[in-house]
Amino acid sequence: MGRITARRRVARVHVDGEIGDRITRAPDSLAVEEPLEIRVGGRPLSVTMRTPGHDIELAAGFLVSEGVASAASDVMTARYCAGTDDDGRNTYNVLDVTLGPGVAPLDPSLERNFYTTSSCGLCGKASIDAVRTRSKFEPARSDFVMEPEILAELPDRLRDRQDVFDKTGGLHAAGLFDADGELVVVREDVGRHNAVDKVIGWALTQERLPLRRTVLMVSGRASFELVQKATMAGIPMLTAVSAPSSLAVELAVESGMTLVGFLRGKSMVVYTGEERIAGMAGSQPATSEGVA
Amino acid sequence: MGRITARRRVARVHVDGEIGDRITRAPDSLAVEEPLEIRVGGRPLSVTMRTPGHDIELAAGFLVSEGVASAASDVMTARYCAGTDDDGRNTYNVLDVTLGPGVAPLDPSLERNFYTTSSCGLCGKASIDAVRTRSKFEPARSDFVMEPEILAELPDRLRDRQDVFDKTGGLHAAGLFDADGELVVVREDVGRHNAVDKVIGWALTQERLPLRRTVLMVSGRASFELVQKATMAGIPMLTAVSAPSSLAVELAVESGMTLVGFLRGKSMVVYTGEERIAGMAGSQPATSEGVA
Repeated sequence: MGRITARRRVARVHVDGEIGDRITRAPDSLAVEEPLEIRVGGRPLSVTMRTPGHDIELAAGFLVSEGVASAASDVMTARYCAGTDDDGRNTYNVLDVTLGPGVAPLDPSLERNFYTTSSCGLCGKASIDAVRTRSKFEPARSDFVMEPEILAELPDRLRDRQDVFDKTGGLHAAGLFDADGELVVVREDVGRHNAVDKVIGWALTQERLPLRRTVLMVSGRASFELVQKATMAGIPMLTAVSAPSSLAVELAVESGMTLVGFLRGKSMVVYTGEERIAGMAGSQPATSEGVA
Repeated sequence: MGRITARRRVARVHVDGEIGDRITRAPDSLAVEEPLEIRVGGRPLSVTMRTPGHDIELAAGFLVSEGVASAASDVMTARYCAGTDDDGRNTYNVLDVTLGPGVAPLDPSLERNFYTTSSCGLCGKASIDAVRTRSKFEPARSDFVMEPEILAELPDRLRDRQDVFDKTGGLHAAGLFDADGELVVVREDVGRHNAVDKVIGWALTQERLPLRRTVLMVSGRASFELVQKATMAGIPMLTAVSAPSSLAVELAVESGMTLVGFLRGKSMVVYTGEERIAGMAGSQPATSEGVA
């Protein structure tokens, strides 16, 4: 756990305190953020700012998100390489992945220009089409259903397992739950997208893709990128503590995924995919009006 | 404002409601997220997922952050190009920037491999060194000082001006304030880094760089990337509602920037640069112990 949190002496200032009591000094825990370079066959593919730990899952999940890997056998080996600090110690910030036989690596130039190659000049629809065609797993095909009462408990259940957040207040979390609300796996990271990649990478290594019978719960907001990652893993339902973006909703609609936001207290907002929430089927659908 | 928010009919589910009252349906506002491709002289440089609006400032701020521009004359023109949707309308998602005479554009391959070219294999120190050498402006040289009582008011002042957040709950904000706590400029975006780029880009176009007499306040957490952007603009103080990462603190120390986190209610945590907070100078410094 040493590299997940770092200790630092800080000063807490209370502006309404008495003179002399206004400044308190004590060691504090910080969430560690360090770059990870992911290489495939020795060739640099991506650099992400992440919290160390579960790096192999992070790399595996990234490869799932990018459409390179979809089964455990697609990622043969992963090892830390190169990268030493001033004292000659391995920084554990460069991870080289060897793909399985016949697995085509992602061309870095293609990955970089993913959006720019879309036919209609970066409009949302073209971006979405590009993602959809690359997904082997279709969230739309899952008949997964959850009770809203169980959904409402997920934020507390996720929070209970955010060990590093408790210490630092500085980490996002992604948790995978089954239909009974039982936690399958949770991962924390300074980057929300990294936490999701770690969850998906775990599923890859456990031969559990596609994740058709699960809901993915994330702290904070739901962006296009998170819906994209969930789509690539075949996850039928994504829920967030806060708001989704317009493009996140558009992609969820296109993917046939259920998207729930503002999941807090005793309520939630369902943006699309009501058929997977028990008690909502048959009522007037929320999807009758598109995003303007 | 049409493209900053989008309307969508959603269903709000209350799990503790009476049967029949559990589901309420109404239109809701979503924060728009769309890709923006930034080109320099017709050559694609970067794609970011952003909220439309203030795109030219976003591109200008990005160029400041990357060390390409530091004066208004460095960005000659910026115009929307290419990019039409299925109905032939401009998507306004491709922006082409023309640099001033003698300004060297960033090589996309260098930008992509920014971290990977660091000498010690991606360790934090090398990343920091690479950033520091590229900054024309030095936050360390600013003798800017703020009263902690004024700092404590900034979150409310920023929140009061988050117009789109009020509607959607889905946007981050970055606000620039002077020593009296007066708001200089505020920008909102689905991406916190974009909001900061828009603020810095505004300052570039207004010929206000370096921003030596200001404090930058951001919603949420403070990452390495945000400290890096503030460093490039010469901002002497960065404050965040939530936690900084370890690398954010390390870079702030190296840059001579004041970094304040957990700025909420009547208290705040000062991670480094106490000399710029009135009443703290001369007391035992918080910086006597490094990040482990």
